[in-house]
Amino acid sequence: MTDRATRNDYKHILPLQTRWADNDIYGHVNNVAYYGFFDTIVNEYLISSGALDIHKGAVIGLVVETGCKYFAPIAFPDGLEGALRIAHTGNSSIRYELAIFKTGADEAVAEGHFVHVYVDRNTRKPTALPDAFRKALQTLT
Amino acid sequence: MTDRATRNDYKHILPLQTRWADNDIYGHVNNVAYYGFFDTIVNEYLISSGALDIHKGAVIGLVVETGCKYFAPIAFPDGLEGALRIAHTGNSSIRYELAIFKTGADEAVAEGHFVHVYVDRNTRKPTALPDAFRKALQTLT
Amino acid sequence: MTDRATRNDYKHILPLQTRWADNDIYGHVNNVAYYGFFDTIVNEYLISSGALDIHKGAVIGLVVETGCKYFAPIAFPDGLEGALRIAHTGNSSIRYELAIFKTGADEAVAEGHFVHVYVDRNTRKPTALPDAFRKALQTLT
Amino acid sequence: MTDRATRNDYKHILPLQTRWADNDIYGHVNNVAYYGFFDTIVNEYLISSGALDIHKGAVIGLVVETGCKYFAPIAFPDGLEGALRIAHTGNSSIRYELAIFKTGADEAVAEGHFVHVYVDRNTRKPTALPDAFRKALQTLT
Repeated sequence: MTDRATRNDYKHILPLQTRWADNDIYGHVNNVAYYGFFDTIVNEYLISSGALDIHKGAVIGLVVETGCKYFAPIAFPDGLEGALRIAHTGNSSIRYELAIFKTGADEAVAEGHFVHVYVDRNTRKPTALPDAFRKALQTLT
Repeated sequence: MTDRATRNDYKHILPLQTRWADNDIYGHVNNVAYYGFFDTIVNEYLISSGALDIHKGAVIGLVVETGCKYFAPIAFPDGLEGALRIAHTGNSSIRYELAIFKTGADEAVAEGHFVHVYVDRNTRKPTALPDAFRKALQTLT
Repeated sequence: MTDRATRNDYKHILPLQTRWADNDIYGHVNNVAYYGFFDTIVNEYLISSGALDIHKGAVIGLVVETGCKYFAPIAFPDGLEGALRIAHTGNSSIRYELAIFKTGADEAVAEGHFVHVYVDRNTRKPTALPDAFRKALQTLT
Repeated sequence: MTDRATRNDYKHILPLQTRWADNDIYGHVNNVAYYGFFDTIVNEYLISSGALDIHKGAVIGLVVETGCKYFAPIAFPDGLEGALRIAHTGNSSIRYELAIFKTGADEAVAEGHFVHVYVDRNTRKPTALPDAFRKALQTLT
């Protein structure tokens, strides 16, 4: 298995709460739930930094590619932390990289990526990233 | 609409984190997500108080009835608090009552109930509540 | 336990597919998943009958109350059927009643209710049910 | 964008039902829901072919890597089909490849992969694939 990331490899940390339904029949957080964490980490950052208004903003982010590698099991009610960085910014797209940690741990239990293409809310055609967006994301690169 | 509960009506509070997927097409937390909160509030309490071992305990809780009234909309990334009390304890069952608050608010956005029957993990037949269970729950009544 | 409903008690049946994630740590469909079935049964009927346009219609349905009683366990990959009827139609609200059956079975494994208030998409204020809506629902009463 | 797969590229098709909650705030099936489809497609095949007993079997499948590319939007209540093939079989692991189609369409709306490591249910250590397993999977390669 490849080297696992540590928290110093990332720029932003969001505490994450597990839920009962995250555990599947085998008693661990299901592989699908990690992508729910990724969606939450990215969008929470974009909303709280003022880059994205999911209700009325002219620009919205559509997901075109995601992936995850799972290194160690976790289970509700574990406390977790989600970590975020930007690997690449294009004209209208961003490749985010993410990791999940048990609270306080240094070695990730999972790592993934999440590629957003930003589009006009109405036409759903790709649009150049607004300045406010680029500015809000500087701390992630 | 009936009087809405306030946080003094409950015995235990658990901070709750919303997730991207909680919002539905209309931009608010979907009605189903509240039941995910209820499951999490009840089981987090039972696990952290030592009453329930969901992986290996001899007794597990099966849900036989749930319900919820929704008073006001909430949306990701709102911070929430879940409130818990016990309304009735039977020989092998407990009726929990729950409410959801926006963080720091006094008036509930939703109230619900959740009835657990406790059963033997293997036979799935109702079993009298163990003493450790009753003791752990005293602070909720 | 009360008498369980049979399929003749309902007006509309929708086949339902279980998913891996419906099973929780105890190996059965989690109590929350049933509400996801209810949402799907009601909205699928409203959309396919032409009553509701969830993307652009002027009227949308907000859920103000739900409830469910669980009679017998089910598990992925069981095939299910969802049953629907209308118990009460008000000026701007409808009380739907639902049941879940194993495919082909006559006795319900769960029964519930689901109350929609219909509101203007923009103001979110209650609105009288449109005629097309009332017409589409006649077969459910 | 790379060439999109067509249904002839796959060995097994499972009809998939969308649910209300699959749609997110932007009105389309959320990126996370596709992984719920993948879990369902793989496990439904393994269970119905007799390879996997998720309740009592000695061997269970743990997911170590997943990924998905999204080519076109879909939305509840669209009918879908999930397609499955095996790309690689190791001593104790299998790389599944999957695609999602709108019902009857020839070009995939999404393609992904899903890597299972098969482990002993109790020790959670990798185990050689049982013969029944290998036999059940022959039609997928």
